[in-house]
Amino acid sequence: MIKVIVWNEDVQKDEACLAVYPDGIHNAIKDFLQCDDISVTTATLAMENCGLSRELLAETDVLVWWGHVAHDQVPDELVSMIHQRVLAGMGLVVLHSAHHSKIFRRLMGTNCNLMWREQDRQRLWTIIPSHPIARGVPAHIELEAEEMYGEPFTIPTPDETVFIGWFRGGEVFRSGVTYRRENGKVFYFQPGHETNTTYHNPHIQQIIRNAVYWAKAEFLTPQIHCPKAPLLEE
Amino acid sequence: MIKVIVWNEDVQKDEACLAVYPDGIHNAIKDFLQCDDISVTTATLAMENCGLSRELLAETDVLVWWGHVAHDQVPDELVSMIHQRVLAGMGLVVLHSAHHSKIFRRLMGTNCNLMWREQDRQRLWTIIPSHPIARGVPAHIELEAEEMYGEPFTIPTPDETVFIGWFRGGEVFRSGVTYRRENGKVFYFQPGHETNTTYHNPHIQQIIRNAVYWAKAEFLTPQIHCPKAPLLEE
Amino acid sequence: MIKVIVWNEDVQKDEACLAVYPDGIHNAIKDFLQCDDISVTTATLAMENCGLSRELLAETDVLVWWGHVAHDQVPDELVSMIHQRVLAGMGLVVLHSAHHSKIFRRLMGTNCNLMWREQDRQRLWTIIPSHPIARGVPAHIELEAEEMYGEPFTIPTPDETVFIGWFRGGEVFRSGVTYRRENGKVFYFQPGHETNTTYHNPHIQQIIRNAVYWAKAEFLTPQIHCPKAPLLEE
Amino acid sequence: MIKVIVWNEDVQKDEACLAVYPDGIHNAIKDFLQCDDISVTTATLAMENCGLSRELLAETDVLVWWGHVAHDQVPDELVSMIHQRVLAGMGLVVLHSAHHSKIFRRLMGTNCNLMWREQDRQRLWTIIPSHPIARGVPAHIELEAEEMYGEPFTIPTPDETVFIGWFRGGEVFRSGVTYRRENGKVFYFQPGHETNTTYHNPHIQQIIRNAVYWAKAEFLTPQIHCPKAPLLEE
Repeated sequence: MIKVIVWNEDVQKDEACLAVYPDGIHNAIKDFLQCDDISVTTATLAMENCGLSRELLAETDVLVWWGHVAHDQVPDELVSMIHQRVLAGMGLVVLHSAHHSKIFRRLMGTNCNLMWREQDRQRLWTIIPSHPIARGVPAHIELEAEEMYGEPFTIPTPDETVFIGWFRGGEVFRSGVTYRRENGKVFYFQPGHETNTTYHNPHIQQIIRNAVYWAKAEFLTPQIHCPKAPLLEE
Repeated sequence: MIKVIVWNEDVQKDEACLAVYPDGIHNAIKDFLQCDDISVTTATLAMENCGLSRELLAETDVLVWWGHVAHDQVPDELVSMIHQRVLAGMGLVVLHSAHHSKIFRRLMGTNCNLMWREQDRQRLWTIIPSHPIARGVPAHIELEAEEMYGEPFTIPTPDETVFIGWFRGGEVFRSGVTYRRENGKVFYFQPGHETNTTYHNPHIQQIIRNAVYWAKAEFLTPQIHCPKAPLLEE
Repeated sequence: MIKVIVWNEDVQKDEACLAVYPDGIHNAIKDFLQCDDISVTTATLAMENCGLSRELLAETDVLVWWGHVAHDQVPDELVSMIHQRVLAGMGLVVLHSAHHSKIFRRLMGTNCNLMWREQDRQRLWTIIPSHPIARGVPAHIELEAEEMYGEPFTIPTPDETVFIGWFRGGEVFRSGVTYRRENGKVFYFQPGHETNTTYHNPHIQQIIRNAVYWAKAEFLTPQIHCPKAPLLEE
Repeated sequence: MIKVIVWNEDVQKDEACLAVYPDGIHNAIKDFLQCDDISVTTATLAMENCGLSRELLAETDVLVWWGHVAHDQVPDELVSMIHQRVLAGMGLVVLHSAHHSKIFRRLMGTNCNLMWREQDRQRLWTIIPSHPIARGVPAHIELEAEEMYGEPFTIPTPDETVFIGWFRGGEVFRSGVTYRRENGKVFYFQPGHETNTTYHNPHIQQIIRNAVYWAKAEFLTPQIHCPKAPLLEE
């Protein structure tokens, strides 16, 4: 059983958002992730300590993170706690506008800036068809409406670029990228604006589900500290 | 003319350190870097605002950083300022125990932990002989005494691994690694303990000099922000 | 002085090609590369031994390669000779349909397949604005007519992805990618179909010129063979 | 069930080799790989067509390859067949002196040269403890006698460097490296000289077993050819 927390800032309460995700994006994601293999909890900004704790994180395999306008309200101490938990082996799936979340920027070491524009049509291309995150995903996925995110995207060179996005308005974007950070595996995935039906798309659901399986640590590994080493050779 | 700042926490004042570097490590490094092409300023922890300012950083091409026991005394605001300046294009050469400096950890997004032990004999192997940082450097360099730093070194996968270290006591280490972070180029280089004569070794001097030439931005590039993009296609 | 050979199979003799490149693509490229710093020779398939020899390659800094329909006519022995010269330190700039050239496939170890379609409109995005190959290049370049090359492009993970292409017809492509292979530096660049005016575009010319400067070895390095090593430690 | 072929040139028939591997290295490897999950076939140079065929390769999940002095006797046509099968998704585990095998050099695109020396003591360090190939493997493994392989090792930048070797005689080596090549996953692993007991070491056995699980394609993916694409956008 893979234990997942889907975190959402959940402050998108205007009509356009509620029309698409009446119970919030976190619950929409929970609905398609939850299955015999995956147990999902949700947490939001409004909860005490953002609904997270050291104990809860310690027993979580993969954290899925969605945020947009309230990144600054996530306390730095909590971000440090999540950061260390990822480095210790918890998987992290970072969605859409969470490219600017504190936790993603902390892990990347860069600003993770990009260009953007409202409402465009996107086509998502699979660059590494044999990658586990692309299992069951077609050569390209059509998204009738999505926020445009364009290059340059100021991230470190990805370990793997699994998807690249095409936008009708004329831009490209490295839409799905992976990183190993100490014991933790990180996947950033661009589609998922709050007023678009992206998370209802079965291919997008498949990618996020694949990412959860991929991001879960293969086995338990001790986090590495900074020990004084014994002398092995005389 | 390449403008370099060599920063040193400069709190190593015991006899063993002063015997090797009577004017401090920063001045030893300045002495071999300074030349017709390279203009060197030094700065230390004891100076006001650590001897650094936004204006000074703005006109600096490459910052060389040495620190060991006083990382925590470098103010977070200053680290943020240096961080943004690296992302905007200033080169950064991180030396020895500065693997744990705030600025290096900020740029890497990991803890940069490692194993260590006092006083060992090191041999440094050149892995990419054609790399500009290896210009004029032999196949291997002998260091009669150096602090042992051993793997696993919890850094992100390097863009390039230029040197790997061998230690008589039985360890290995990725001793010279490069990263591009937005517009900035970063080189971490392991040798250089405060009580060892490493910075008097002409090959080590050559590597650090090469690294300064390499880390300087090839040309001025605007830092990338997060603009709303115009529509290019109807 | 950088010594460059521009090689072209030069069998594109129909009207549509000659209208754009009356003296052949190789001469069009020579015209914009040739300058005080760069000395250009051309060579073609029709010449004896394709206009190349061990001696000529030995004194060449960078080889620029264009081919499309006649890859199979380049002798395997010549490809092996070029291959070893690249590994020894000669730069290689591979253009457009030379993604299927023997020398590029030999260096990549994969088939370098892709999708394609005639005549489309392309926009080329700069992904790493601070990269030396992007010096003086705008955020995006417009090509009114170009052959569409689409992902998946079956190359190894690039060391650096400098440019990504957008096509009006709906595709994306890693259009400018770099690789280090032993002492040699390799740049693949997608635009440049024989019936399009791409090589007359000043931005494209700038990129290829930048690539020549970048691909030239920084300094002379001995090629690495397989020696029996002396014992360093008792 | 994972279908594995262990291929061995199997010409090591002198006393020193037979004392360690009386039934050949391939059978020693088969013995520790064979289990409920893994079905192992062996093949050798002396068999007709090296014991391999298109049909056999088509149903093989992972090919393990050992060779040393007889690389040249493997026919080029067979190497091309294996090459295409790897690109189509068969995993490949390349052992020890097979760094110079035709199939590994074909996939790497470089000479894969290195330094070497007979009989040394090796210590193998785990660089990425959370990597699936390092599952159950200690921080370092001791090999009392192994052939020394030293840097520089002229391979492309690995996707991942999982292990680095230390040699008593003073050298280092990237001993365990991974590559993705189209649909295929490749692991090179350095220890395993024909007169040493390396393949009897349970930690080495664990690594090779892990590598087989890792190298097997996660799912069936069509090999990518070079299709003319339909027009998606008007």
